[in-house]
Amino acid sequence: MTTSQSPKPPSPRTRVRRLHEKAAYDAATIAAILDAMPLAHVGHLVGGAPVVTPTLQWRIGARVFWHGSAASRMMKAAAGAQVCLTVTCVDGMVLARSGLEHSVNYRSVMVFGEAEAVTGAEAKEAALKAMMEQLFPGRWAALRPMTAQELKATAILSLPLTEASAKIAAGPPTDPPEDVGWPVWAGELPMATAVLPPVAAPDLAPDLADPPPYLSAFRWGERR
Amino acid sequence: MTTSQSPKPPSPRTRVRRLHEKAAYDAATIAAILDAMPLAHVGHLVGGAPVVTPTLQWRIGARVFWHGSAASRMMKAAAGAQVCLTVTCVDGMVLARSGLEHSVNYRSVMVFGEAEAVTGAEAKEAALKAMMEQLFPGRWAALRPMTAQELKATAILSLPLTEASAKIAAGPPTDPPEDVGWPVWAGELPMATAVLPPVAAPDLAPDLADPPPYLSAFRWGERR
Repeated sequence: MTTSQSPKPPSPRTRVRRLHEKAAYDAATIAAILDAMPLAHVGHLVGGAPVVTPTLQWRIGARVFWHGSAASRMMKAAAGAQVCLTVTCVDGMVLARSGLEHSVNYRSVMVFGEAEAVTGAEAKEAALKAMMEQLFPGRWAALRPMTAQELKATAILSLPLTEASAKIAAGPPTDPPEDVGWPVWAGELPMATAVLPPVAAPDLAPDLADPPPYLSAFRWGERR
Repeated sequence: MTTSQSPKPPSPRTRVRRLHEKAAYDAATIAAILDAMPLAHVGHLVGGAPVVTPTLQWRIGARVFWHGSAASRMMKAAAGAQVCLTVTCVDGMVLARSGLEHSVNYRSVMVFGEAEAVTGAEAKEAALKAMMEQLFPGRWAALRPMTAQELKATAILSLPLTEASAKIAAGPPTDPPEDVGWPVWAGELPMATAVLPPVAAPDLAPDLADPPPYLSAFRWGERR
């Protein structure tokens, strides 16, 4: 039994984990992960039970935003309520000599807080424009402008990044010394999202067929 | 104002959405999405507030499983509690003529239920073996066997797929007819996860350097 008089030294297991995975709380690390990965999973309560909804997030300064139909159950349930928004980029599988040491290399951010609704047509449009500009810079100005009705039908929520943390796991497997000699392949199987050639809409006018340059610049999950 | 005497016809917006996005509840569709994408986000309550944790899931028959350290706050909070496990594969960005019609092509599954702990060394080992076999068939038998201590330190949770649903969005943008002529590129920007060449662990013995065949067979998020 461990007592407070004889603190246990860090176990080999703890040491190993700490080499592979690290937490971060600085704004730059958190922003880089959020900016790299638009896909978020937002958790909120519906009738007292957790619901996790996939959605796209985008960042403006020290806040993160997401949107949906103003009629959606999720957007209604989340407004003004405590939520958790999580973003995860998977960078690879880590194959070790034991099952236990297998893991995933990833970058992840969790943001906690009370979701705040963006209100007013002007503020909503500015937020949506910022989303588009982050995904496809320059596209917003070329689109058919939003109508007042469309802005009304769109709900936008946001969270400050005050209660946010990142977790990053990277590198090769960290088997304890006694396992390293086990006769099995070990290493990392890296993964990355490939953005494939754009596919024009079937009803696209032939004179518009040239893909705009922001399509080839688009990235998803890439380390920044 | 709409009254119950004069039901509103489906709005163009509803029609458009229904072309692009569809819900599914059949076991085969749900299983195919779960099997294609190991990354899950599990939502559970900690102190009454939602927490969304990224983890790997795997399926055995009509149940979905995930695991973690027996000491983790998340695994302790989720056992026996109502959770929501969500899996999302992003297949592409959909660029329409208006901001509103922009969307994402994706396949997603949400599973609701009370998380049940897998107990007993034998059942735990069988579940972990099933996970490894799904990711890297044949690897389990080559690993340093799990110890009783490791099994004890590993918590495994599962959910039945009885309360599960899928949502699939695919295809080109579905702008209403009056927007189709707007002079902007429209179409889909498809994405897929590339599995890159394996990187051997720095301490891997040279005679083990040949990557096993299951590494080149590994897929992440691919349509099945």
